[in-house]
Amino acid sequence: APKKLLILPGDGIGPEIMQEARRIMDWMAQARGIHFDISEDLVGGASLAAHGQPITQQVIDAARAADAVLFGSVGDPKWASAGFDRRPEIAILKLRQELGLFANLRPAKVFDSLLDASTLKPDVIRGLDIMIVRETVGGIYFGTPRGIETLPDGSRRGINTEVYTTAEIERVARVAFDLARKRDNRVCSVEKCNVMESGLLWKEVVTTLHEREYKDVELNHMLADNCAMQMVRNPRQFDVIVTGNLFGDLLSDLASMLTGSLGMLPSATLGAKGEDGRTPALYEPIHGSAPDIAGQGKANPLAQILSFAMLLRYSFDMQEDAAMIEQAVSNVLTHGLRTPDIMSVGKTEVNTAGMGKAVVAE
Amino acid sequence: APKKLLILPGDGIGPEIMQEARRIMDWMAQARGIHFDISEDLVGGASLAAHGQPITQQVIDAARAADAVLFGSVGDPKWASAGFDRRPEIAILKLRQELGLFANLRPAKVFDSLLDASTLKPDVIRGLDIMIVRETVGGIYFGTPRGIETLPDGSRRGINTEVYTTAEIERVARVAFDLARKRDNRVCSVEKCNVMESGLLWKEVVTTLHEREYKDVELNHMLADNCAMQMVRNPRQFDVIVTGNLFGDLLSDLASMLTGSLGMLPSATLGAKGEDGRTPALYEPIHGSAPDIAGQGKANPLAQILSFAMLLRYSFDMQEDAAMIEQAVSNVLTHGLRTPDIMSVGKTEVNTAGMGKAVVAE
Ligand SMILES: CC(C)[C@H](C(=O)O)[C@@H](O)C(=O)O
Ligand SMILES: CC(C)[C@H](C(=O)O)[C@@H](O)C(=O)O
Repeated sequence: APKKLLILPGDGIGPEIMQEARRIMDWMAQARGIHFDISEDLVGGASLAAHGQPITQQVIDAARAADAVLFGSVGDPKWASAGFDRRPEIAILKLRQELGLFANLRPAKVFDSLLDASTLKPDVIRGLDIMIVRETVGGIYFGTPRGIETLPDGSRRGINTEVYTTAEIERVARVAFDLARKRDNRVCSVEKCNVMESGLLWKEVVTTLHEREYKDVELNHMLADNCAMQMVRNPRQFDVIVTGNLFGDLLSDLASMLTGSLGMLPSATLGAKGEDGRTPALYEPIHGSAPDIAGQGKANPLAQILSFAMLLRYSFDMQEDAAMIEQAVSNVLTHGLRTPDIMSVGKTEVNTAGMGKAVVAE
Repeated sequence: APKKLLILPGDGIGPEIMQEARRIMDWMAQARGIHFDISEDLVGGASLAAHGQPITQQVIDAARAADAVLFGSVGDPKWASAGFDRRPEIAILKLRQELGLFANLRPAKVFDSLLDASTLKPDVIRGLDIMIVRETVGGIYFGTPRGIETLPDGSRRGINTEVYTTAEIERVARVAFDLARKRDNRVCSVEKCNVMESGLLWKEVVTTLHEREYKDVELNHMLADNCAMQMVRNPRQFDVIVTGNLFGDLLSDLASMLTGSLGMLPSATLGAKGEDGRTPALYEPIHGSAPDIAGQGKANPLAQILSFAMLLRYSFDMQEDAAMIEQAVSNVLTHGLRTPDIMSVGKTEVNTAGMGKAVVAE
């Protein structure tokens, strides 16, 4: 039976870049006879407009039943005043939580042909290849108590709780160590153990797991504030970084921006292998929904296309096809095609569809 | 009566850079007849070694009685295994809390003569001048419940609590708006209101205060992850940034690193004006204790010297003397003197004391 693929384009530029990923799928079907069982549904602002909620139970069930989810992006200023319980962002938060997608893998890799797109000096980032493993179903994102309470004097208090258990830390650290073994064999674990007990436990659990099962991997520990600095000072010192939900949110965005080509970077979020042998997985560009340029054909579809390649590699075990797509993307860049976000002097500017077609042609 | 100045050199390079700040004070006494009532005491690892605790009640009382505190830096790997309750860092955390030093002012300013020291391209950071106002007595640093608990099955849970009240947010936002009026009149308020209720309250309170009292100041809101990215993409878009304790910790270190000259940047942490008309204030370099180079004469004393200048300006109302010191620092750099951290081809390398003496000579 063909693999089940759920497509969730979402908001802003999501639909138009997903269109280009579909162009690749269409080509795979026509040219190579590879078929998927594809379904598509609404999330984020699009789902709010249609169903009054950022994600429906039906979509969550479909995601659970799928072999993999290809996600676009959510977030829409139209819903800014919809209230905290009806934020478009709930779509991705719920998918992570309901499918147990605890490990967000965010590569920050510099493309040689885009070296100059970064605001950092070329010598500082040439060959940069960081993999951030961010915990995504725990920490302050989901801990309780949370909320805003009104005090007797009428003033208010906002509360969130950061919680991490041994098991939560261990499983994500395991993902990081396993990945490191296939890379440069180095893990940097990041927390604020000098201020937060949750970070202290984080450090202890990672250290113990390392002692017990991963002594062959080089491990070091870094405070989150120092990590933010080191990323700017000398980002190439990092191989794999493992960290909690909130620090991971900031640090992975920071790392992406170092590359200068946010529109190029895919990500994967993986869960635990189920009894049926399947590992729940969601793939998405790291960039957001960019409502300011939505619908204008300006969006760079490459992160979405590379997210699809990542999906083929990790979830469908189709290494060759994944490599073929990645090579096609690299060729297109080498030939000088650029969407506006990565445009520079002497290159050829193309729109969203033009970029998608060029990848197919390659 | 002469102003009371408490000096707390702390650990690592703290004592040797403080020595250079004292060189300036000595010169002020000799050459200009300006005397302070100076006392000096131990904090951090130095206090742990002498008293078994990172800060004594006596030092806290002395800090409270002083007109201003000049702090070096704390943190010492020797005490890494001393336990969470005996971290050297407690010294600064306790001073902030006990003196109510709620607003940490961290300028990230690029010195034209050090433009090339940054890993960012000169065009991106030329003229950069950001002021980060970080809340420092609330948020996840101090919220309860906190700690590590053992669960029935023997596994553990680490917990920290982020709490912000209307009053805490308002008073730090006020500092940011007031500062903006003396600068480029723009404030960017940073939180994660799409995920955290404490961030949602933060945004609401800042918005309300702005509407009510600071309509003349331009205000915008940014998510913390986006802010980390924007700092790398286009840092000059920022004037004043106001944010909570934890985001401020990462973002201010990040902003400092953009300048490429961490060893140059001072900071101030201010409290609320008391009934006696005095505003508690602590001044410190933003860099850490750098134990790896301590005692070798390699440390750059300029951040400590500029922290003293900031102290003269904000706490002692000695604008002229502050400006004179700042000008001297600028001249020394223009003449090409450099400590190892900012050394570059064609410049003259000097050690810690050499730099201090050069500033005095100017
Ligand atoms: C959309 C938002 C809730 C999300 C997050 O904060 O996790 C995003 O920033 C991300 O990094 O995937
Ligand atoms: C020393 C440490 C507790 C402190 C903090 O995290 O606040 C430091 O990093 C700072 O930014 O002043």
